[in-house]
Formats: sequence, C-alpha cells, structure tokens
Amino acid sequence: MPDASATVPAVPPYSDLPPISAKLFEAKARKGLTFDQIATAIGKDEVWLAAAFYGQAKFSEDELKKVSETLGIPAQESLSVLGEHWWPHRGIGPMPPTDPVIYRLYESVLVYGHAIKAIIHEKFGDGIMSMIDCKVKIEKKPDPKGDRVLLTFDGKFLPYAKW
Amino acid sequence: MPDASATVPAVPPYSDLPPISAKLFEAKARKGLTFDQIATAIGKDEVWLAAAFYGQAKFSEDELKKVSETLGIPAQESLSVLGEHWWPHRGIGPMPPTDPVIYRLYESVLVYGHAIKAIIHEKFGDGIMSMIDCKVKIEKKPDPKGDRVLLTFDGKFLPYAKW
Amino acid sequence: MPDASATVPAVPPYSDLPPISAKLFEAKARKGLTFDQIATAIGKDEVWLAAAFYGQAKFSEDELKKVSETLGIPAQESLSVLGEHWWPHRGIGPMPPTDPVIYRLYESVLVYGHAIKAIIHEKFGDGIMSMIDCKVKIEKKPDPKGDRVLLTFDGKFLPYAKW
Amino acid sequence: MPDASATVPAVPPYSDLPPISAKLFEAKARKGLTFDQIATAIGKDEVWLAAAFYGQAKFSEDELKKVSETLGIPAQESLSVLGEHWWPHRGIGPMPPTDPVIYRLYESVLVYGHAIKAIIHEKFGDGIMSMIDCKVKIEKKPDPKGDRVLLTFDGKFLPYAKW
Amino acid sequence: MPDASATVPAVPPYSDLPPISAKLFEAKARKGLTFDQIATAIGKDEVWLAAAFYGQAKFSEDELKKVSETLGIPAQESLSVLGEHWWPHRGIGPMPPTDPVIYRLYESVLVYGHAIKAIIHEKFGDGIMSMIDCKVKIEKKPDPKGDRVLLTFDGKFLPYAKW
Amino acid sequence: MPDASATVPAVPPYSDLPPISAKLFEAKARKGLTFDQIATAIGKDEVWLAAAFYGQAKFSEDELKKVSETLGIPAQESLSVLGEHWWPHRGIGPMPPTDPVIYRLYESVLVYGHAIKAIIHEKFGDGIMSMIDCKVKIEKKPDPKGDRVLLTFDGKFLPYAKW
Amino acid sequence: MPDASATVPAVPPYSDLPPISAKLFEAKARKGLTFDQIATAIGKDEVWLAAAFYGQAKFSEDELKKVSETLGIPAQESLSVLGEHWWPHRGIGPMPPTDPVIYRLYESVLVYGHAIKAIIHEKFGDGIMSMIDCKVKIEKKPDPKGDRVLLTFDGKFLPYAKW
Amino acid sequence: MPDASATVPAVPPYSDLPPISAKLFEAKARKGLTFDQIATAIGKDEVWLAAAFYGQAKFSEDELKKVSETLGIPAQESLSVLGEHWWPHRGIGPMPPTDPVIYRLYESVLVYGHAIKAIIHEKFGDGIMSMIDCKVKIEKKPDPKGDRVLLTFDGKFLPYAKW
Amino acid sequence: MPDASATVPAVPPYSDLPPISAKLFEAKARKGLTFDQIATAIGKDEVWLAAAFYGQAKFSEDELKKVSETLGIPAQESLSVLGEHWWPHRGIGPMPPTDPVIYRLYESVLVYGHAIKAIIHEKFGDGIMSMIDCKVKIEKKPDPKGDRVLLTFDGKFLPYAKW
Amino acid sequence: MPDASATVPAVPPYSDLPPISAKLFEAKARKGLTFDQIATAIGKDEVWLAAAFYGQAKFSEDELKKVSETLGIPAQESLSVLGEHWWPHRGIGPMPPTDPVIYRLYESVLVYGHAIKAIIHEKFGDGIMSMIDCKVKIEKKPDPKGDRVLLTFDGKFLPYAKW
Repeated sequence: MPDASATVPAVPPYSDLPPISAKLFEAKARKGLTFDQIATAIGKDEVWLAAAFYGQAKFSEDELKKVSETLGIPAQESLSVLGEHWWPHRGIGPMPPTDPVIYRLYESVLVYGHAIKAIIHEKFGDGIMSMIDCKVKIEKKPDPKGDRVLLTFDGKFLPYAKW
Repeated sequence: MPDASATVPAVPPYSDLPPISAKLFEAKARKGLTFDQIATAIGKDEVWLAAAFYGQAKFSEDELKKVSETLGIPAQESLSVLGEHWWPHRGIGPMPPTDPVIYRLYESVLVYGHAIKAIIHEKFGDGIMSMIDCKVKIEKKPDPKGDRVLLTFDGKFLPYAKW
Repeated sequence: MPDASATVPAVPPYSDLPPISAKLFEAKARKGLTFDQIATAIGKDEVWLAAAFYGQAKFSEDELKKVSETLGIPAQESLSVLGEHWWPHRGIGPMPPTDPVIYRLYESVLVYGHAIKAIIHEKFGDGIMSMIDCKVKIEKKPDPKGDRVLLTFDGKFLPYAKW
Repeated sequence: MPDASATVPAVPPYSDLPPISAKLFEAKARKGLTFDQIATAIGKDEVWLAAAFYGQAKFSEDELKKVSETLGIPAQESLSVLGEHWWPHRGIGPMPPTDPVIYRLYESVLVYGHAIKAIIHEKFGDGIMSMIDCKVKIEKKPDPKGDRVLLTFDGKFLPYAKW
Repeated sequence: MPDASATVPAVPPYSDLPPISAKLFEAKARKGLTFDQIATAIGKDEVWLAAAFYGQAKFSEDELKKVSETLGIPAQESLSVLGEHWWPHRGIGPMPPTDPVIYRLYESVLVYGHAIKAIIHEKFGDGIMSMIDCKVKIEKKPDPKGDRVLLTFDGKFLPYAKW
Repeated sequence: MPDASATVPAVPPYSDLPPISAKLFEAKARKGLTFDQIATAIGKDEVWLAAAFYGQAKFSEDELKKVSETLGIPAQESLSVLGEHWWPHRGIGPMPPTDPVIYRLYESVLVYGHAIKAIIHEKFGDGIMSMIDCKVKIEKKPDPKGDRVLLTFDGKFLPYAKW
Repeated sequence: MPDASATVPAVPPYSDLPPISAKLFEAKARKGLTFDQIATAIGKDEVWLAAAFYGQAKFSEDELKKVSETLGIPAQESLSVLGEHWWPHRGIGPMPPTDPVIYRLYESVLVYGHAIKAIIHEKFGDGIMSMIDCKVKIEKKPDPKGDRVLLTFDGKFLPYAKW
Repeated sequence: MPDASATVPAVPPYSDLPPISAKLFEAKARKGLTFDQIATAIGKDEVWLAAAFYGQAKFSEDELKKVSETLGIPAQESLSVLGEHWWPHRGIGPMPPTDPVIYRLYESVLVYGHAIKAIIHEKFGDGIMSMIDCKVKIEKKPDPKGDRVLLTFDGKFLPYAKW
Repeated sequence: MPDASATVPAVPPYSDLPPISAKLFEAKARKGLTFDQIATAIGKDEVWLAAAFYGQAKFSEDELKKVSETLGIPAQESLSVLGEHWWPHRGIGPMPPTDPVIYRLYESVLVYGHAIKAIIHEKFGDGIMSMIDCKVKIEKKPDPKGDRVLLTFDGKFLPYAKW
Repeated sequence: MPDASATVPAVPPYSDLPPISAKLFEAKARKGLTFDQIATAIGKDEVWLAAAFYGQAKFSEDELKKVSETLGIPAQESLSVLGEHWWPHRGIGPMPPTDPVIYRLYESVLVYGHAIKAIIHEKFGDGIMSMIDCKVKIEKKPDPKGDRVLLTFDGKFLPYAKW
C-alpha cells in the first residue's frame, strides 16, 4: 500500500548502508511496490533484488537505471553512488543475529550444519556448495495447518583443488 | 565402500558427542552404508538421519532399534545412551564455523539474511520461518557446467503473537 | 506525573531506535501516562505495548493511529516511519546486559536454563517453548516482606519436525 | 519408563558437573522417575529439583539423603561430594546458548528485556526483580491449537539503596 | 579550584551519558566543588552522588532540584531529562576496563572473587551479597608509607530461595 | 561439621588448580575447619588464606608447613607442589563471572567503577588504588532486616610516575 | 569509465578513513582511472597504491603530489592530511571479515596456516616471513576454464634472534 | 636429519588432530624426510601435502597408501582413520593466531585485504578468488640481503551469480 | 618540517580523544616540532609527553601552559578541557591491536610474558613490576645492519601484601 | 634452594606445553638452579632461556644437550620432543592476561602503545620495531624507595617495503 510520506530512519541495518539505499527503500514504500514487482521490471528474482537493495549485490548500470526509473528516482543520483565504481562490501548486521527471523537461519547452521556437510560429502565428494555461484529463492507454500516458507539454495558444487 | 577397520577419532565434532555416536559412525563406515540407505531402513530422510547421528535430533525408541539393527550394534547399547531419557543438546561446533562447507552456510546468513527477512515479511507478514517445524532436504542437480547442490528449508511460518 | 518539558536523550537504548520512538516516549512522559493506560486505549497488554515502544513489536496501522492520538502526536508522523512498510529489527542492547534489571533475566538463563529445558522435555517431549507465539505478563504481588514481581511467559509448545 | 541400563555420557552439560550428578541423572532414568516424583519425595518443586540436579542449587543434608534414598544411591556417596562443604558454582553452558530451548529464553531477554525493565520501573520504582529470592514454575496449559508452556518467575522486588 | 571556562568533551564515558550529565560535570568544575560538597547539600554520600552523576543512580525530584540549585543550573533543565520519567540504564564503559583505576577493581574479582565467595558462604550460607541493597564508601587513610584507599561495600546478604 | 568422606570433584574452579589444592579443600572439609580457624593457626586473615587455597596467593614455606600440619597432610607433599619454586598464576574463572556471588562483585565495577575512580582522583590525585598492596576483609554485620556483608579493600594509593 | 558525478558514501571501509581518502577514491572514479594507471604515474605497483588509498601505506611527499596532480586534487589539500606528519594506523575492517572476498584470504590462514608455517620452517629454519619487508602482487592468469587470480607475497625471511 | 626416537607431544595443533596424524609427523621426523620428499613420492606439492598432514586436505586411498609406505606405517592403520569415510574438518588453531608466523599471514588480511579486494574487482569484476579451487606454493628466493619467501595463491576467479 | 596547513582527521585514535588533543597534534605538525622538542620545553621525556598528547597522562596546569605557549595555542583553551578537573581515561585503541607497530608490543606479551614473569619472580619474589610507577624510554641505537629501537620500562617492584 | 621432590602440576601454563617442559621445570627446581645459572651453562641470557623453557624459543641440538646435562635429564629424552623436528608454536596464555604480572605488560600496550608508535615513527620513519630480531633483558636496579625492574627490548627497526 503506497504511503507518500514513508521514511526509513537511519538505524540498523539502514545506517550501515549508503544514504541512497534508504532512498530506494523509501521510494519503494512510497510507491507501494513489492520487491517482486520491482524485480520483474528488471528481469530478476525478488531475493536477488532485495539483496541488492541491502547492498549485498551489484546492479549493472542498466539494471540500476531501470530500478531508478521504476521508483521515480533520477538514475544519475543512483549511479553516482552505486554505479560502476561501486563494489558491494558484503556482510551486514551483528553475529549472532539478534533478530529472530535471521537468527533462525543462523540456528540452522548450528543444528543442521554438520548434517548438511556430511550429506554433501557423501553425494558429491570433498568440496563445498558455492555461496558465490548460488541462487536463493523463497516461495509461499499454502498449508491448512499454517503456510510454509520454502527457502531454496541452488549452489554449484566446487571440488577441492589438489596440486 | 565398506572398510571393516574404519574408526572415528575423538576429535571435533565427534569429541563433543557421546561415544555411542562415534560408534554409529564407525559401524556405518564399516558396513559401507550411506545415510540414505540407513534412512530408508527407518523411513526417514537422509538429512534428518545425519542430524540424528550428530546428536541434533532425537530417535524414537523404535527408530533407534532399527538403526542399530541395520548397523549391527546391539540395540540395548544404543538405547542405554540415546534412549527415552536422552534429550539432544543441540548446536555443535564453533561459530563462526571454521570448516569451509559450514562457513558457506553461515555466509548465506551474512549476505542474504536481510533480503530473506524482507521477502518473508513482504510475503507473510510479521513473523518468522520456524526452524523447529522445518524440514531440510539436499538434492544433487546434474549440470554440465558442474553439478549443483539443491538445499531446501521447508519451514512453517509463525506469526508474532500480540496480546 | 506529567512533565510538559520531559525529553528523552539520544543515549542507549533510545539511540538505537528511530527518532519517532523517542518522541513516543517523550509524549508519554509529558502526558504523564503509564504503559498500561496507553495499552488500554488500544486494547493491548502493557508489556506488549512497551515492547512496541522499544521497536520490538509491530503496531497495526489502526493501533498506531490510536496510540498517536492518545499521545497527541500526528498519526501521519508515526505512520510515515512505523507504518506498514516498517518491520521491527528485533533484539536491542548489549549481551550480556549491563543493566542489573535486564541482567537478572539473563542470569535466569544461566542458572535455570538447563532445569527449564529438562522440565519442558519431561512434560512435553522433544520441542521448544515458542518465543514467537508467546505472551509476556507482569503483575505486582503485594507481600508484607516486600512486594514481588510475577513475570509470566505463556508460550506455545512446538514439537520438533521429523522427516 | 524405567531403563535399567540407562547411562549419561560425559558430554555437556554433564561434563561440567561432578560425576555424582551424572549418577543422579542415571539413577533417575533407570528408575523411570520424573523430576516431579522425586521433588514430591522431598517436598520441593520440580524446577528447583532439576536445578539442584544440574548443580545450580544446594541440597540440605536432609534433602540429599531423601533424594539418594529415592534413587537408590548410598546417601554417603552423594553427601561426600554435594554435602555441607559443597557450594554450587552457578551458571552453566555457553552464552549465547546453542540449544534452541535455552536460546528462546535468551531471546526473551533480547526482545522483551527493555519492556520488562520499563514495566518493573513503572510499577515498582527504581530497583530490580531478585533472581535470588525468586521461584520458577512450569505448568502445562492444554490448548486445542497446541499445548502451551506457562513459565513463571516469582521474584522479590528489591529497591536500590541510596546512602 | 573553580575554572569558569571548564568544559567536558564528548568522549567516553561522557559520550555515553545524556548531554545534561556533561553539564552537571562542567558546572561542578566551574564552581570548583567536590562531590562531597555537593553530596552534603543534599544529604547523601559522595560515592552515591558521583554514581548519580555518571547516570548510575536515580535522583529524586527533590534531590535533583537541590543539586541543580547548588550548581547554578535551572532545575527544570535537569528535571526534563533526569526527572521522574527517567530510569538509569546502568553499567557503563568497556569490559574488561581499560583504565587502570577501574581495572584494579576488575582484577580484585579475578584474584579474590573465589575467596570472597567462599568466605561469604562459610559465614552466611548459600546466598549472595546484594549489589542493589549495598552502600559503597571511600575513605582516605593517611599512612607514612603512602596514604591508603579504604573502599567498603556494605551489602545485604540474600539467601537463595528454595521452593 | 567434619565429614570424613568429603571429596572435591575435578570441576571448575578446582579443575584449574593443582590436585594438591583439591586435597587441601578436602582435608579442610573432612576436619570440619573454617578458613578462619586455619588462618588463625598461621597468623593470617581468612580472606588471604582462602585466596591462597584458590592458588591466588603464595604461602611461605613456614606457612604451608603449618597449614599442612593443621590439616593433617604431610608437609612435604604440599611443599613439593606449592613450595618455593611455585608461583601463583593468578586470575581464575570465566569473565564475566557466571556465578551470581562473583557476578555481583563484577557488577560493582560496571555500576560504581566510574564513581569510585572519580572519588579516588578527587581525594588522592592522578593515580590508582593498588590491588597488590591491598588487604581484603569480610565481616558479618548483624541487622534485624537481614545480616549484612561488610567487604573492605584497604589498598595503597599509587601516584602516576611522570618523567 | 569516467563518471563525473561519482561519489563515495561514508560507510565502511570509507568511514574509517580520513575524508581526504574518500576524495581520492571519488576523483579516481570521476576520471575513470584504474589503480594501475595511477600507480604507473608515480612508479609504483597497483596493490601498493591501493593499500595507500586505503590508508595502509604512507605516500612520500613527492608521491602524494603526483597522485594529487593525476587526480586533479590540489596537492596542498592531500598533503595537509596525509603529508609528512601523518602516519598510517594500519589494520581496517572487522575480523573475521564479513566480505566474501576478504574472508577467503582469512580462510587461507585457517586452512593453510599451519602448512605454510611448517614449510617455511623446513626451508628456512626458525623464523618468519616478514609482512613489513613484503611485496604483494596480483596478476590475471587467463584460463579457458575460468581466469585465475595469482596473488603473490614476496617477503623477507627473518630468523629469530637468540641472545 | 633422522631421529629414531622423535615424538610429537599432544599439544596444539597436534592435540586437535586424530592420533594417526601425530604418528605421520613422528614417522616423518624419524625417517628424517622433508614434506617435499614425501610429496614427490605421491606426485603432489609440499604445501598440499603438509596441509593434508594437518588434516586440512583429503588423501585419496592411493595417496595415503603411498604416504604410509614411504613412512613405514601400515597402510591399513592410516586408512582406518583417514580413509574414504573420513572428511577433513578444516580450520585449526585460534584466531587471531598467536604464533608469529601464522599471525603475519593474518596481518596481511588486516593490512592488504581491502587493497587486494579492490584490485580483484578492478581486474575481474564482481566476484571472489576461490580458496577451494586454489593452489598454494612456497619458494625460497635467495637474496644477498636475506633470503625471501615467495608465497603464491593461484585461485580461480568466481563471478557472483545473478538470478 | 613545518606544514602550516597540517590537519588531523577525526579517525582513530584521534576520534577517541577530546577535540583539543587533535588541536595539539595539529599545532605540533604546523610548527614542525618533535615530541622531544616540546618535552624539553617543559622538562619532561618525549615518551611521557606523547602519552599525554594521546590522553594517557595528566599535565599539571603549569606544564599545559608551557605546552600551549610552545605550540601557540591559548593556554585557557587547553586548560578548559585538560585542566585540573580533567582526569585521563586511560587505555585507547582495539585489542588485539591492528596496527603492526602496536601489535609487536602485544606480541611481546604473548611470546615473552611468561618468561618475564618467571624472571621477575626469581629475582624479586612474589610481586609485580608496577606500570604506574614506571618510566618508559625509547632510544635509537645505530647499527650498520640496521638501526635498533631500545625500549626500556623502568618500573618499581611491588611485593604482594599478605595480611 | 633445591627441593628434591619438587613437582610441576599440569595446570596452565604448563598444561599447554609438552610434558618434557614440565620435566625441565621440575629438574630446575629439584636442583635449585636459577634461569641465570642454566643460561650461563649454555652461553645465553636468562630471559631467552626462560622463553625456551616455556616453549617460546627453539634450542639448538647442542644447547638442549647442555641444558639436559645441567639438569640431569637424559639428552635423548629432551631431543626426542624438542629436537630438530620440533618448532615452537609461540604465544601462550589467555588474552587479556589474568595474571597481574603479565597484565601489567599488556597494560603498557593499552596506555603507552600509541605514544611508543608515535616516537618510533618520529625517530625512525614508517616501520616497526621487530619482535623477531629483538632481545629482551631484565635487570634489578636497587633503589632505597623500593627496587626497580629494568625491562629492555632491543629490537631492529624494519622500514616498510614500498613496491
């Protein structure tokens, strides 16, 4: 729902991002757009787009222009900060996370980390699931007992080099 | 591949688990069984089974009996430690994780945590994805450019209580 | 007791909250209202309301309007920051807490955490007490030897998924 | 359910307790007794008893004798370690807790700590809720949508000294 | 010695306190008053007063008025921040402390903590020395080999509740 | 009260001390002696003696002989470990302390540290209260509202060198 | 590619550097110059130059003048901050690093640190590879399976002194 | 130089590795072999081999057989621990490292981390240097002013996925 | 070399000091004076003077006047902040230090700390080298193989009190 | 003073060293030798020797033989652990140090670190004092007001490489 006066205060995590990022979030709220709607406009997935909003991915010049246009922000203003010369400095927020949504992801590492490692080794051998060549998706799976979140990581297996 | 002399040394993460756990891992290696093969024997998924091996889930008495039988370990020996009176003390290993496989999962929280939180809120409202009522799956997705790991979390959305 | 000049300085924990939050606290002090009085105005409990003031819960649009009205703050001003597009980033303050009031809660985890876990398992099985579907209450229990604080957590038991 | 061969492995949190503690836990499992049943035998609450099992409270000589008798352990054996000369060294387990049950309690401090502090001050003045003169109770509250855990802290309010 | 131009820079620990606190310190320096002289004016001890200056204790309205008057600060200005609606958020500075004066206190915990605990238990039983109902005094004890600091904690013994 | 079978388990803080220390504690319990009684035997204060038991002070050869004699331990056995060649490695236990008795001391640093520093500077100038040339005393002060612990640090003031 | 409006926001790592550093980065982006092009202008390597931009190396007066000239910044402005009187305060960013590029370097220490130490000792004896008298180079090594980064540390071996 | 009685004590880092690892190190010392000599026997580089000795890489069955043969250890003994069923749990030792040799590597991340990241981005775009598909080499470069260590990381560039 | 436009940016360690400190550093740079030259003007050593510049020592009123005069800063301006009412809050910068110069000092504690302790005990008995009554000197010792830094701590031995 | 039964318990810092190290310390105590006396026997300084005893320096084969002979330990026993194949893993004990003697050294870094860095730069330029090519000495300087410890670091200045 659009709220023409929506603002984003300079508190975490926004205070760790360039001021232009808060402006993107504000414009999104003022227009009442979802991440999915903006993502569609540039032919990307909503999770990737949200990551880019949080300074965790790099827009191409073209993508940033389209995002700016969609949000009604002068493209030059976005490009001057997040353009070609800008590189994401990834990894924001305290660890362990204090927010329960993000903590649950962290808890998955604590509880299922060794099991996931063991199954990856058993199925693929000595190597890792890349978090660089990795796509993250979120789907809503309706369920009469309560809807479910389907969170998927689709990452390339990388075998360890030996030399 | 079975190796009748396989042993599991008392180093992390095994040194943080009851000795019976190392024995389960050893029996698995000596029989040359995969987690999937053992899981099938008790009608469970391989990731859940691996989690149980790492002391992160609780076998029912019946499940533990079947696992013991499959591995050729006297059921009473397993039950005396991991039976009804035993409750998992979940969460093992150092944080941040030092092993690259597990670190990549941790990195997904650092890099994509805020994006995932934002999308969950946008799609579901104020609440979290449960890590208790959550199922974790791993699939191998063949790809000519390198096989991919498909890691899925299927967790119930829990809205925040207001009172 | 109302104090028309009451102010809230930008020090922790207020400095970690949006400026509008300090304004809510200031208006509350200037009107001389208790959390309970404001909570009653919107049909909620005082602890939940206080949590919302500290940015740890999300007002519905309607609730925020009523709170603003009660406090004499233009609703639009509150909504522009804490409205529909705003999501709580939960978890504030240092850990371990340095304030003795909050530290005592932390100490309860250190001293009684394992006992509470053991009793929950014994009474409910393998699972947790939800802190999402949980209501927190505080009552004053008069006692000639010194009044007592009755702090109650009423949380749903969530059994661990097995798959 | 009694399991005459039940054992308690020397892993956390048991490895941080005197060996006699593990023996108490083992005897409890072998007899198939609940904390409540043992607590009744000495006229105490189950949460306090569980805390004492975890080395977080001090049995009187008489209580320890009755507990030993109930469990079939020679009283002298318990008294030689946990008798009059022994004082609890309170506070066990890592912080932040890794086990999800205990973490949820910790999360309550992160999320509701400031709200609880504010309400205590508003209702009682400048002081704290004692965690020394404090009683902790757990009740099971049946609920068709899922049973609920009722966790209550009943602690004396202590006003700050001024001098 | 009064210094009419004395200022207090916004560096730790002052930067962690409300600006009015720095103003109290500045007025004290400009008038050339000791904590003892100000404390006498309100009938309190110098250590308690200094704690209140550092935001670690709560002035009553009357005390704050007298302090303000003594220092030549408009009472309303002090009350607007530190008045009835303000509650100390106790605990300032990094831990372990970096300042040698404060570190020596910390070192007393490291070196004599267990001895103090043991003697308290031996003399009083299972319980603690309250730091809430506790008075702290500092005296100068002249000594030809070098004056000595006499630091006294006079705290109520609180026995552990059993239930 | 003597307990001829008293033992001291190898858990913290005893597991951080030489085995002979546990033996001293055991002998003390078996004889039913207080720290004060043993201290009197060697002409020292009980707090200093307790500190020495916890490995935080160094017995002279003569003192250790008398302590051993008092406790019925062969002096040579004590001397072989804690004799002339042994130097205390001071500072035991985790920080922040998890035990509530010791934590309260730590809390005194958090809450009153800056006030104590300020008063010391005001009364003595730029320097510190020595924790090396410092005597620690504990007295029981009867009080109808509850006995009080009188904890005194009597430390030499050391002015900062300038060169 | 030059972007005449390029800006560098005051977020990490730029917020930890003098404002003149951000100005250097901005001028570089506005002129569309690479580190290599600027480095060539002063006869240095690109990695060393980038380190100097990040405040991790010290320009000579002459080098800073040439860099300023190349970037179109008045030399006096750069010199007033980074001139003769300025000394690098080396070491920026959080550890462990949150950015995946920098984390991979950190991971190399975790995974290969002991192996590197062992080989250095075997080849050179007891000593270290200097990180002070050390040159760091990066080359692009084309590879049909994906280009490779060649990162070289060329550091002097320093044998341990014995005296 | 062979030393037939060489032993490897169970202190860090060896105490974090399986006992068989210490045996490999001992056999190497007793035979007086260098990592390079053993590496040659299995057609690998010395750094990779040393990493495998420190449990940071996985031997193939064939490689482990040859290593065992070279060292005079029964292959079955090595295989039973480090065989097919064993997966490295990578990342050993404390961070920050306390050993000066390893600390200097860590310091390279602190001092040159941002410069290396910047140059990688400039030369390759948005992505990382893989530490999985990475080869590490150490060469001795004679120099009259003191020999130099040439440490090279040859890692594949991985561009960030966009989706 | 004087640089009339020299400035000191508000980055660590200057951002942790009162603004007047930066002004002292700036004036020093603008006049082109060394610490030694300023120290001579007030009859002190250069290391002590530098410590005072970094807020780690307390100027007497007279010393601060002379320093201000030497640097051409109005004495009243310095005195208003660093005068009689100001007390150093000692201990600046992160630990472990990230700057290699300061880290090397820290490393001396890691590597030689136990040896220094052992020798002090052997030569002086049970006690410490005071860091309060301690003078620190730095000399340049020319050496054809590379000049050497002679860093000397001259601290009073303080024997432990026994009581 | 020799004590033929002297032992060294397996507590920190000895528990972090190879058992042979404790044996060296024990033999030293049993023979009643000082570090200086042993150092003289091998032509080294007492501080270096003590460092080697604490596993922080590497004996040559010849030095270790002479030390063993001096202490009456079979040389082969020392050599088998600390011989040619052994490399010190430097850096022992917790940080910040808990022992007051070692903490005072750490405090010197906190308080005088920046001053020392500033003077080194002023006298030598951009570089560090090496802690590898560094000699540490301790002298006893008699003083009627209390003997003084003279602790000297004599380290080579290493200028930063530029490339």
